[in-house]
Amino acid sequence: MQNSERIIMAHGAGGAVMGTLIERFVLPYLGGFQTEVGLEALDDAAVVGEVVFKSDSHVVRPIFFPGGDIGRLAVAGTVNDLAVLGAEPVALGCGFVLEEGLDFSDFELVLESMKTSCDEAGVFVVTGDTKVVEKGALGGLVVNMSGIGKRSKALAHNLAVVRKCWRNFDARWVLDKNLRVGNKIILSGTIGDHGLAVLSAQEGLTFGSKIASDVKPLNHMIEQVLEVGGVVSMKDPTRGGLANALNEWSVKAKVGILVHEENIPIRNDVRIGCEMLGIDPLEVGNEGKIILGVEDEMTNDVLAVLKRTKEGKDAEIIGEVTDEFSLVAMKTVVGGRRILPMPVGDPVPRIC
Amino acid sequence: MQNSERIIMAHGAGGAVMGTLIERFVLPYLGGFQTEVGLEALDDAAVVGEVVFKSDSHVVRPIFFPGGDIGRLAVAGTVNDLAVLGAEPVALGCGFVLEEGLDFSDFELVLESMKTSCDEAGVFVVTGDTKVVEKGALGGLVVNMSGIGKRSKALAHNLAVVRKCWRNFDARWVLDKNLRVGNKIILSGTIGDHGLAVLSAQEGLTFGSKIASDVKPLNHMIEQVLEVGGVVSMKDPTRGGLANALNEWSVKAKVGILVHEENIPIRNDVRIGCEMLGIDPLEVGNEGKIILGVEDEMTNDVLAVLKRTKEGKDAEIIGEVTDEFSLVAMKTVVGGRRILPMPVGDPVPRIC
Repeated sequence: MQNSERIIMAHGAGGAVMGTLIERFVLPYLGGFQTEVGLEALDDAAVVGEVVFKSDSHVVRPIFFPGGDIGRLAVAGTVNDLAVLGAEPVALGCGFVLEEGLDFSDFELVLESMKTSCDEAGVFVVTGDTKVVEKGALGGLVVNMSGIGKRSKALAHNLAVVRKCWRNFDARWVLDKNLRVGNKIILSGTIGDHGLAVLSAQEGLTFGSKIASDVKPLNHMIEQVLEVGGVVSMKDPTRGGLANALNEWSVKAKVGILVHEENIPIRNDVRIGCEMLGIDPLEVGNEGKIILGVEDEMTNDVLAVLKRTKEGKDAEIIGEVTDEFSLVAMKTVVGGRRILPMPVGDPVPRIC
Repeated sequence: MQNSERIIMAHGAGGAVMGTLIERFVLPYLGGFQTEVGLEALDDAAVVGEVVFKSDSHVVRPIFFPGGDIGRLAVAGTVNDLAVLGAEPVALGCGFVLEEGLDFSDFELVLESMKTSCDEAGVFVVTGDTKVVEKGALGGLVVNMSGIGKRSKALAHNLAVVRKCWRNFDARWVLDKNLRVGNKIILSGTIGDHGLAVLSAQEGLTFGSKIASDVKPLNHMIEQVLEVGGVVSMKDPTRGGLANALNEWSVKAKVGILVHEENIPIRNDVRIGCEMLGIDPLEVGNEGKIILGVEDEMTNDVLAVLKRTKEGKDAEIIGEVTDEFSLVAMKTVVGGRRILPMPVGDPVPRIC
């Protein structure tokens, strides 16, 4: 970034380039509010008083892709960002930026999909705004979705179970920084599906079978997991993929993470698609999936409940938190160990 | 709109065309939540439990204009939408959609301006998101600003004063629909400044003197007014201008409004600029101004306090609420009466 004085696509792709932009420009001007979880936490959502609050913009291109569309992405994205903190979504606010020339029928399809996704999540849009810009490079529309949530009913129980295992635990929410040595890492399902589905739609590619996005609201699945208890931290590995999410976690919680490559669920067609394109499935952005840091003794119980849900049926324990090192390492299929670095940027642009 | 099956600029310009889009497409899919002030209220913000919630997207072009920029507009816009409901802004959420090629120095100027505006309003950004899109027609960036607020400290006093004058008054917030026959209409200052300032920047025009935007957070001014009491309803006459705001008010509250043209404060250079361009200053979008519906007996007290503030020094009583008719009428300078219709769309596109 030091050689560039302009915004490039990588500034919006998750990963190290975006991280530098946030730290160099955004935090110095906009940070500073003393609240339980504020801007500096760079967590999935903020906590102000008893309100969990999140704002997200969606620019995916094309706006329709196998398995989803920009409307579903916006609803699920905000719902999931609230849910992974331990919140129940209460209401959404929706700002549309429409491009001149957008077909009413396409706009209506997006609205219909938002409605379906809201129904699935059990949440409503209560406020909004509509703007129109001249035809350009948006590809139809941008959806800005903000949301407010309140403490999930099961959160207190979940935290009580954590405290049985970890006496000094004092967090009131399931925050990134909570992760500690000895926790197990669970991934709720296969990775790469969403990124490859959007890429196939962007480039008109097909990979033998049809790869579809798994974008969906996960708040009900997360609620069931919290009812089991023992979850210390949750994240959704969206832009920058699993590699980015694990590295962010490691830095924020100041711990090492060891993942086992053979345990990471990846669909075979996604793996082949990534190989054909020369991209790393660990760096491709996901939707519809979360990673959980769980107290060791609760791991099997949490996994069993996850596997009984439709969204979490492919869940696996993919690794553990360690003090052997302070970065993310991967035990590869062939038995070696390698560092899993923070990606520079998601290899697939505008996937969410 | 019936002849068009595509989005046109007027769909984002306030006024009747936008209203039809919202009613035909957005409300049928996204409405329906049973809450104190929801999407159907089409008010400035929503109320969910004790949280006031608002989401707004900003697409002004150019991003810098005399008197302001997109960052100041976004902060002030959301702060003011919360404040006119009777809420004190608590926290903001900010989503940036940056265009590839945007200069870091321009981004930094926007952030600096947001910081200044947040400081003025006494509010912080606590959560956010950054996306990047290919270079197109955005003109640099889009800013999506959501906000949450809580009941203003002075709101209870204000409502108590209203109830002294109006026994059946039972609203807990300063809503559009509260307006009733006998209320006076106060405008907090001159209209047209912002729209003309943006237009001059869009078209490279100058109108003799320099017309600057008056965009600013108004929450402190509004708090002082609520401390006087007797305010039943407030609106900010942004897109679609004063004509749009008055018509919306009349429809929602099912009352007639009579305004006196000679009492509407308009700067002379703004009036001349509008005449040169053949546009109606009553239909040009504003920032930094509000209209208030006030119980008759409190009107002079409210006006006096407004005039003592920097933001409200040019405030005037511009009309009254009547049951003589059920639309908006204007007593013109030459003494006649004419209907002031709902504008089709703001004559100046992308002003906020």
